[in-house]
Amino acid sequence: MATRVVCYGLGPIGISIARLAVAHPGVQVVGAIDIDPHKIGRDLGELLGSEPSGVIVRAGAADVLRESHPEIVLHATSSSLAAVAPQLQACIAAGADVVSTCEELSYPWSAQPQLASDLDIAARAADVTLLGAGVNPGYAMDALPIMLTAVCADVRAVRVLRVVDAAQRRGPLQRKIGAGLTPAEFAQRVHEGTVRHVGLPESLHMIAAALGWQLDAGDDTIMPVMAERSIITEHVTVSADQVAGVRQVTRGYVADREVITLELRMYVGAPDPQDTIEIDGTPPLRMTIAGGIHGDIATAAIVVNAIPGVRRAESGLLSMADIPLVHYW
Amino acid sequence: MATRVVCYGLGPIGISIARLAVAHPGVQVVGAIDIDPHKIGRDLGELLGSEPSGVIVRAGAADVLRESHPEIVLHATSSSLAAVAPQLQACIAAGADVVSTCEELSYPWSAQPQLASDLDIAARAADVTLLGAGVNPGYAMDALPIMLTAVCADVRAVRVLRVVDAAQRRGPLQRKIGAGLTPAEFAQRVHEGTVRHVGLPESLHMIAAALGWQLDAGDDTIMPVMAERSIITEHVTVSADQVAGVRQVTRGYVADREVITLELRMYVGAPDPQDTIEIDGTPPLRMTIAGGIHGDIATAAIVVNAIPGVRRAESGLLSMADIPLVHYW
Repeated sequence: MATRVVCYGLGPIGISIARLAVAHPGVQVVGAIDIDPHKIGRDLGELLGSEPSGVIVRAGAADVLRESHPEIVLHATSSSLAAVAPQLQACIAAGADVVSTCEELSYPWSAQPQLASDLDIAARAADVTLLGAGVNPGYAMDALPIMLTAVCADVRAVRVLRVVDAAQRRGPLQRKIGAGLTPAEFAQRVHEGTVRHVGLPESLHMIAAALGWQLDAGDDTIMPVMAERSIITEHVTVSADQVAGVRQVTRGYVADREVITLELRMYVGAPDPQDTIEIDGTPPLRMTIAGGIHGDIATAAIVVNAIPGVRRAESGLLSMADIPLVHYW
Repeated sequence: MATRVVCYGLGPIGISIARLAVAHPGVQVVGAIDIDPHKIGRDLGELLGSEPSGVIVRAGAADVLRESHPEIVLHATSSSLAAVAPQLQACIAAGADVVSTCEELSYPWSAQPQLASDLDIAARAADVTLLGAGVNPGYAMDALPIMLTAVCADVRAVRVLRVVDAAQRRGPLQRKIGAGLTPAEFAQRVHEGTVRHVGLPESLHMIAAALGWQLDAGDDTIMPVMAERSIITEHVTVSADQVAGVRQVTRGYVADREVITLELRMYVGAPDPQDTIEIDGTPPLRMTIAGGIHGDIATAAIVVNAIPGVRRAESGLLSMADIPLVHYW
């Protein structure tokens, strides 16, 4: 029996998710929700550039959820947990499990404990599971390093380095990391909170919780990476005196010891893209994925791949560290 | 509340497991079972070279299990599922979850479906969980590649290469892989089934099951690796015309296409030890752990680290791909 799925949010990532969901033999897409006037009323299949699906995109989430009886909602609307909480509550009220790309949902217990608790209580009461999923946060800098510690008799520190050449990624991402800004504009955006990667603190706290570490302190530093030469991508032009993107480092400490270090370098023209994880433990481990995990397609994939694990998991607000191993299915 | 644990089997791996279990704040070791006359009647702590634990090693498994009320048994007696099945049934009858290093238990559904089914039914009836765990099988060549596919929208093939320099491992392992034999002796041992790595076919079928692949064919080839120069380890002496260890390759096919390739090179003096996983998928991934995962301490660690996931998991005979993410705790 195929799992009944509603696609909630049809921006670039939501469209990628819907494309994978529609094509998956284990999934039956029974509803689609988006508020974009250009999408409302259109057939989802047509919107995906494939054959008509019989599923019409509608704006009224409550109506779609009530009428289509989804077992699970694939949700991709916003990075902000405060913004999506009412949407998630509507899914919970409809009795559906949820996998969401909302970055702040990946591990919200530290930054937004009240919202996390409210969602957890509601999900348990409705006997549904809520999961924040994605490549980063949700995998490359948290679930994967957590899983690597499975073979360790002791872990003293976890260090993760993710290098992404943003030139190979979608336009909104290039703009989100400040590519093409002057240093002053970049500083202003950082101050406003509009230039940053959402999720590093969530990854930090997911790792700490899994390993049973009570962090005494943490910090999060965001710096511009300046272009060394002019770079022209499909989406932006960056001259040699402009910002190419970000370098963000999040650290967690127990006593005065740095036990978790998460470094993300995401800029256009970044050389040697990679995901590298070092476990300072017994035994020590050093894992590298040369080229790195390509985020856009991978984020859509992990959301769809999380479906079986979420369907089997206990109820409540869970993280990737709580559910059965997620894998391609 | 610490989890009540019985350690069943106190050979080299069982002793390593017991040492980690006794030291773990989340574990209370309440019983110890072994049939070695030199161990029976001794205090487990003393056997571990640490302070007395108050737990006396006994041979009567049924008595220990009945009297000590374990929540979980850490089992390490044999690679053979047929040999350990009665022991596992005794644990199930005592109402205890089990994590076992029995290699053939890691994914027994293909090679020994009747034994697997019997154990699964018994475990479900008793509402306990049964898991085969270890580095290989159980992690390096199955659970880890399975987890890497989480970010893939499509997977066409999985290739795993594990290179182990057996000179750095325990003596029994060096002898098990045939180090120091003549080619004729090696061929004879392969024929008898005493020289081989137990677990590659189990890993193959665990991967195929997780990815939903019905394999049409599979093969398993075992070859000697000859020493190129004489090698002296703490445990064996290998001259230049003798066997240094094994190269074993297990393949799985869908139609005529090789979709899973697991290659294990384990010999004294093997250069460039590593665990490398290639996912031929969308996106493609290539992961390397330089130096590889050191098996002896790692196997003991993963058994202890599996405790929380097994305690939370549904009942029945499960694999590493079924339970919540295993990690250091």
